[in-house]
Amino acid sequence: MTTLMSPDQLEAALRAIGAEQYHDKHPFHRRLHAGDLTKDQVRAWALNRYCYQRTIPLKDAAILARMDQVALRRVWRQRIIDHDGDAGDGAEGGLARWLALTDGLGLDRDYVTSMRGALPAARFACEAYVNFVQRRSLLEAIASSLTELFSPGIIRDRVEGMLANYDFVTEDILIYFGHRLDQAPRDADFALDHVTRNATTPWDQQACLDALRFKCGMLWAQLDALYLAYVEPGMIPPGAWRPGEAVSE
Amino acid sequence: MTTLMSPDQLEAALRAIGAEQYHDKHPFHRRLHAGDLTKDQVRAWALNRYCYQRTIPLKDAAILARMDQVALRRVWRQRIIDHDGDAGDGAEGGLARWLALTDGLGLDRDYVTSMRGALPAARFACEAYVNFVQRRSLLEAIASSLTELFSPGIIRDRVEGMLANYDFVTEDILIYFGHRLDQAPRDADFALDHVTRNATTPWDQQACLDALRFKCGMLWAQLDALYLAYVEPGMIPPGAWRPGEAVSE
Repeated sequence: MTTLMSPDQLEAALRAIGAEQYHDKHPFHRRLHAGDLTKDQVRAWALNRYCYQRTIPLKDAAILARMDQVALRRVWRQRIIDHDGDAGDGAEGGLARWLALTDGLGLDRDYVTSMRGALPAARFACEAYVNFVQRRSLLEAIASSLTELFSPGIIRDRVEGMLANYDFVTEDILIYFGHRLDQAPRDADFALDHVTRNATTPWDQQACLDALRFKCGMLWAQLDALYLAYVEPGMIPPGAWRPGEAVSE
Repeated sequence: MTTLMSPDQLEAALRAIGAEQYHDKHPFHRRLHAGDLTKDQVRAWALNRYCYQRTIPLKDAAILARMDQVALRRVWRQRIIDHDGDAGDGAEGGLARWLALTDGLGLDRDYVTSMRGALPAARFACEAYVNFVQRRSLLEAIASSLTELFSPGIIRDRVEGMLANYDFVTEDILIYFGHRLDQAPRDADFALDHVTRNATTPWDQQACLDALRFKCGMLWAQLDALYLAYVEPGMIPPGAWRPGEAVSE
């Protein structure tokens, strides 16, 4: 039933999953980039996506902790450095740059980092990601990072669309995404090469495809939760952020 | 800031959380019980709630594995027996009774138990529940079960409402709920007594309240995901069950 693919076939199968299930297709993102959201809806997005941003170095540390080869660890640790930055300058690193966005949108920083107002579904999705990289094989954990193959396109759409369509969005609060345009392709190239060279059985190849499907699903689920709560029909769960809350302006 | 409550005050605070955040308040349940859903929407509910039903004996086993007292384990193991039944008769146990419901709604049993078509958000919420009882204190794990204090009311509304309002619902496919009306109060009484007697510091009491809030949140998140996908606006995520799929009738 399952046959062995060549590395090129496996890459094509991975890219086909992105073409179908990556969250650039989600209606929330289409609205975000087209300028169809209110400032409060953009705040809800930035607030909740903090949960995901916070998870990235945690899941990368969990992956690092499973790598028994020095050569692999030397490469992978850069991801953690990219997101955590250096101690000397609190403004460095992806997580700090994300907080520049939530600051710029007027959200209280302590409120954001406490995740008190985050949607439970967003937190659960992020938790599932950490579980995944801890419990599945190292190969599957690495394969789950391959959504970065698809991120340059969505980042360009986002930066261009948000700058053009929202008067409250400026280049300096979108600084996170500029850095990701360099980092993500470097990381994705490494991971793709690793996966296509190491997934050498039909079973491993299918597991890598499933890992990417899982990852697309966890990204999608976060936007689903945002959409229901803050776009349509606007059902905010008990305890989650309500427009006006924790905002200074 | 945080003061010590008496056992009665703690019970009142726990019940107040249920009054505000328990999923009997969720619009999906109101529609389910009022007869406002189509058969496919009821199928979507039964299919996705299987993830939760499947999780119950797993989380109870995780709690059991943390109980260092014979007396506690003797009580808690009954929960697993209730859901798993006995080997001699496959139709016994809560999980088998849930499958009587999905069978009765015409859903393919292998499809249901594979969880292939379940909403990722429903699976993530259930996974968060297992994580919670494994990682928090045993007291918090037990406190998270206290939603059962509130379940008899919703079960009565459900059975009465579904029998009255759907011609495709019969008593024999709702057999799960009849058993829960006996089991849940017994379990809840024990857990409430344990929590109110053992949460003897302000910190422990607040942790127990937070545990119940977490549990209400994970139940709520499952209905949010159902609502978005199958009620309004009807955004079914990639890969999730679509009406007509895996149904024989």
